[in-house]
Amino acid sequence: MFIGLVRGNVVTTQKVAQMTGRKMLLVEPICVNEAGDDWTATGKTFVAVDAIGAGYDELVLVTQGSSARMTEGTGDAPVDAVVVGIIDSVHALGKCLYKKES
Amino acid sequence: MFIGLVRGNVVTTQKVAQMTGRKMLLVEPICVNEAGDDWTATGKTFVAVDAIGAGYDELVLVTQGSSARMTEGTGDAPVDAVVVGIIDSVHALGKCLYKKES
Amino acid sequence: MFIGLVRGNVVTTQKVAQMTGRKMLLVEPICVNEAGDDWTATGKTFVAVDAIGAGYDELVLVTQGSSARMTEGTGDAPVDAVVVGIIDSVHALGKCLYKKES
Amino acid sequence: MFIGLVRGNVVTTQKVAQMTGRKMLLVEPICVNEAGDDWTATGKTFVAVDAIGAGYDELVLVTQGSSARMTEGTGDAPVDAVVVGIIDSVHALGKCLYKKES
Amino acid sequence: MFIGLVRGNVVTTQKVAQMTGRKMLLVEPICVNEAGDDWTATGKTFVAVDAIGAGYDELVLVTQGSSARMTEGTGDAPVDAVVVGIIDSVHALGKCLYKKES
Repeated sequence: MFIGLVRGNVVTTQKVAQMTGRKMLLVEPICVNEAGDDWTATGKTFVAVDAIGAGYDELVLVTQGSSARMTEGTGDAPVDAVVVGIIDSVHALGKCLYKKES
Repeated sequence: MFIGLVRGNVVTTQKVAQMTGRKMLLVEPICVNEAGDDWTATGKTFVAVDAIGAGYDELVLVTQGSSARMTEGTGDAPVDAVVVGIIDSVHALGKCLYKKES
Repeated sequence: MFIGLVRGNVVTTQKVAQMTGRKMLLVEPICVNEAGDDWTATGKTFVAVDAIGAGYDELVLVTQGSSARMTEGTGDAPVDAVVVGIIDSVHALGKCLYKKES
Repeated sequence: MFIGLVRGNVVTTQKVAQMTGRKMLLVEPICVNEAGDDWTATGKTFVAVDAIGAGYDELVLVTQGSSARMTEGTGDAPVDAVVVGIIDSVHALGKCLYKKES
Repeated sequence: MFIGLVRGNVVTTQKVAQMTGRKMLLVEPICVNEAGDDWTATGKTFVAVDAIGAGYDELVLVTQGSSARMTEGTGDAPVDAVVVGIIDSVHALGKCLYKKES
């Protein structure tokens, strides 16, 4: 899985039937830097199906590949990336790098 | 999934039987830039089977890997990338980055 | 799938039983450049099983991952890349970039 | 599989049901350098489910893709990376590069 | 598949049960250069299960992904890379680039 930052969303009208009704998020994978005290942008963006109700600017956990079809709503769909969780906290090198505001 | 720009198409005559009759598009993955107001080219091109009737210069949603075999027409075919939708709009950082002309 | 240029071949004598009798090609993925009028080398080379009878210096279509096991000859084999077609023509940005000599 | 260095961990509260109770580690893939006498950082970080009880700063073996669902605890879960072992030693170019302190 | 150079090996004691008794090799993917007369190092190293009895400094053929579970010994194991053959010769651009000493 990778840590993704939700940057926006993607809408498609003309699509294969199995994609109907799916919320698709634009996510950017981000990495923890060497010192463990900040994020490194990857500059890449992917589209992931939202299985959990994530929103803009949230940090999420994204599962890729065939495993993306293992959530309740994505079985047998042509889906290769799914948001499986909203991240509450990330600890790196013994310190708290990120804590979601509640 | 990734956002792809349809750059052209590929034709093969001599091929395995399961590839017969498939329209194959040349797609370039593109990413949203850091500011969310433009696209970043990746310089890579892939070939994806068209499952939806996409055309030249359209922005499309491409599914990769085993999930590419989950559309009605691609089951059990040696296909690892399929166009599953034509993109209508992309919102990034709260603004509309792209809206398909109708 | 990716567009590959056949650069040569690989021979193995000591191998797992399911690899016996397979012709293995050395392929380099190539991409279409931004202007659509030339190829970009990737500098990478992979080994793909030949399912179609491709030869040296031909442009081929290569399928990767579990989908490489979906051709008649590769089912249940430990194969992650297969040549599924020989490319006849590539059109990019509305022009013909490549046409196979017949 | 890749060799990963455990850099920290990730906590999610809101998640798909199948992710409940899983310990998720932040791992950085590392490579052996050309001389075989040191590690090369990749600067990338991924999240892997812990199947073995690994801890901070340990070197671990990480399996990716659908094979990550082949451990006792991860079958049918939307998991694409799992820690399958704690590394005791790495030999490279005939010398011992790493030996876990006991 | 990729061509790998065996750089060493990895030992794990604490591991999931299905990994018991497997010899794990440290392999570096290498590519053929543009002129076809030498190798290009990738600087990356992966860990692959040995299914054939490969040794240090040998050139091997490595299968990745779910296909790595298709050898006799790796079915249903959390394994995403396996050495399926020892390379005898590589021909590139019509010349012999590599021939294994016998």
